[in-house]
Amino acid sequence: MFGARCLLRALRSCSSAPCPRHRPAARVSVRGALGIQSANGERVKVQGWIRSVRSQKEVLFLHVNDGSSLESLQVVADSSFDSRELAFGSSVEVQGQLVKSPSKKQNVELKAEKIEVVGNCDAKAFPVKYKERHPLEYLRQYPHLRCRTNVLGSVLRVRSEATAAIHSFFKDSGFVHIHTPVITSNDCEGAGELFQVEPSSKIKVPEENFFNIPVFLTVSGQLHLEVMSGAFTQVFTFGPTFRAENSQSRRHLAEFYMVEAEISFLESLQDLMQVMENLFKTTAMTVLSNCPKDVELCHKFIAPGQKIRTYAKKQLSSVAAVDLLVPGVGELFGGSLREERYHFLEQRLARLGLTEAYQWYLDLRRFGSVPHGGFGMGFERYLQCILGIDNIKDVIPFPRFTHSCLL
Amino acid sequence: MFGARCLLRALRSCSSAPCPRHRPAARVSVRGALGIQSANGERVKVQGWIRSVRSQKEVLFLHVNDGSSLESLQVVADSSFDSRELAFGSSVEVQGQLVKSPSKKQNVELKAEKIEVVGNCDAKAFPVKYKERHPLEYLRQYPHLRCRTNVLGSVLRVRSEATAAIHSFFKDSGFVHIHTPVITSNDCEGAGELFQVEPSSKIKVPEENFFNIPVFLTVSGQLHLEVMSGAFTQVFTFGPTFRAENSQSRRHLAEFYMVEAEISFLESLQDLMQVMENLFKTTAMTVLSNCPKDVELCHKFIAPGQKIRTYAKKQLSSVAAVDLLVPGVGELFGGSLREERYHFLEQRLARLGLTEAYQWYLDLRRFGSVPHGGFGMGFERYLQCILGIDNIKDVIPFPRFTHSCLL
Repeated sequence: MFGARCLLRALRSCSSAPCPRHRPAARVSVRGALGIQSANGERVKVQGWIRSVRSQKEVLFLHVNDGSSLESLQVVADSSFDSRELAFGSSVEVQGQLVKSPSKKQNVELKAEKIEVVGNCDAKAFPVKYKERHPLEYLRQYPHLRCRTNVLGSVLRVRSEATAAIHSFFKDSGFVHIHTPVITSNDCEGAGELFQVEPSSKIKVPEENFFNIPVFLTVSGQLHLEVMSGAFTQVFTFGPTFRAENSQSRRHLAEFYMVEAEISFLESLQDLMQVMENLFKTTAMTVLSNCPKDVELCHKFIAPGQKIRTYAKKQLSSVAAVDLLVPGVGELFGGSLREERYHFLEQRLARLGLTEAYQWYLDLRRFGSVPHGGFGMGFERYLQCILGIDNIKDVIPFPRFTHSCLL
Repeated sequence: MFGARCLLRALRSCSSAPCPRHRPAARVSVRGALGIQSANGERVKVQGWIRSVRSQKEVLFLHVNDGSSLESLQVVADSSFDSRELAFGSSVEVQGQLVKSPSKKQNVELKAEKIEVVGNCDAKAFPVKYKERHPLEYLRQYPHLRCRTNVLGSVLRVRSEATAAIHSFFKDSGFVHIHTPVITSNDCEGAGELFQVEPSSKIKVPEENFFNIPVFLTVSGQLHLEVMSGAFTQVFTFGPTFRAENSQSRRHLAEFYMVEAEISFLESLQDLMQVMENLFKTTAMTVLSNCPKDVELCHKFIAPGQKIRTYAKKQLSSVAAVDLLVPGVGELFGGSLREERYHFLEQRLARLGLTEAYQWYLDLRRFGSVPHGGFGMGFERYLQCILGIDNIKDVIPFPRFTHSCLL
């Protein structure tokens, strides 16, 4: 529950007490415990799941992991603690003293005074087996349990770090965050690959249609961001987008995440590409510096020696646009300067019979229009890129694709 | 584009140059310009929209806003610059010198050397009128333009700040962020109020159903977070949730945002309530300190003298649960300790005929189960609470509710 700093604070008040042994042990996360530079018998309580058990003549070694880091904490106990219940996958609470470890493998270990099994693990039925490296395809069958393996643990911690880093990057660069809507009545863009939304057949709504008009799951927040860039100059969104694509390929999901940005008063495609590059670099640097071990695990075990090469494709005919393609991953970024000429847009919409439906979009060019542009980055593809993970289904907690919507 | 620090860096390199007047002016945001403590003739370029025009005999005053702050930058120009095009709502680029303002109203003003109108504004057609305070109900008709008013600008900047503050709070407290899915095959929870998802009728999929089973828009990420709390101990999600509620009340939306957290090894409801309280307080403090003017505007103009009283309701019969109700807003928080007894859950699911569909949920109690609990906070209600905004439709960029899905 607490990191190293909290622990130190807790211990500080402890040390001035007359009888520290009778005080309750400070609760500490595995990451917090491992972060202590010179352990000196501090009494702590650690809670987590057993990742390995090794029983020797007089001593029992456990490794306890609570998901706060890839590394587990080594617990050293008297062999009298040994029991059948202390098995791989069981949840435990361990109280004891943090001490310097004699082994080179870790700085710190926990000398157990009390070990309590909180929940047993039925090892035979548990699909994750002790000391086995399961293929990612196998783990995909168990979306409710695969997060307990090292590799999915690392991937999802990196995903969480990258999410935070993306929010920070845009905030530090002066962008306003906008929640663009998931349900939308715009349908011109993804035409062939939309999901439609209706109240469940269980509901009896007097009207034929809940929203009066057909509505769909968003394929992009671009149009809504264009609205907002006309007020806040620089805006971004980071949310789910959808494609009813009938594809089982390792590159496609029906529900995936996009980072999208829109910038007013944009002067050139180069300025846009600079933001894309800064986003990619800053986020990757933060992830690499905050969870190097997690990234290393992915690189080492999954895609040995993978090198990222990228291709940028630029079009400068009627529309200035750029796509960034990564071999093996697909389109990572797509960006463009938007059409701002009112009459040009008006004619195009008229030809498509969409003038009435998109009058609001024309309005943006009537009331203080500005040159603007933006881009989208596929978040799962970004993760594949920095982690070297081959299949997009392995970088999202609960993948949705044709014929599959588990949980 | 750049904040005060960037500007200073740009100016620093400028000052050593032999002929600063011929260098391109540094681009600066309104917020960046206003943040300069002692302006001294720095040459800058500001881009934004005209919020007011005042023409005197020999001098022209403009207020330019770019959405980076509630306050606009005062531009002072020779009356020779006066033109019909310099009107409310037009977009402009102004170059000139930042100087100390003689007025007490602002520290800094921009002495214009060059003013360029980027895009005109058709004042007659523009639904936002100069110097008028439009009722929020009126503005709701124009979701593509209302963000250009002071009040919606402030609300959406606060929303963006609060979003960042929530992510920071959980990260700093050691929680892992999880993107829980929007499309789900779980349907037991919201039973009567679900949206169903199907590929648009335009698509011809050979199969009757895209996912093989009926799927719905999520009503809560709780079950998916329970999965993840079994690996990472502390997890949270912050995303869209949906209710097909046939209500036009000022308290309900069909699409709204929830902050949800789940914590393993939780010892009591009190511990859970402590996290809820910390989340509320920390986030509110950050928002108040980062955008005090925006919050003040909402308080002053919208809900004079509103005071927040809260009621906490606790149930401790079969389930330990707590709801936090705010008068005028509704349920802000709902939290509980989760049922962890395998046989109890098994019986309940069997009675509902759901044993097969929820075997995965039972599994969580078979493999290293731990006591755990969590809560959800309605994000729009949270914003209503801290801003004193009466109608939930005014704190979300694009509200969706019965009979309305604009844009």
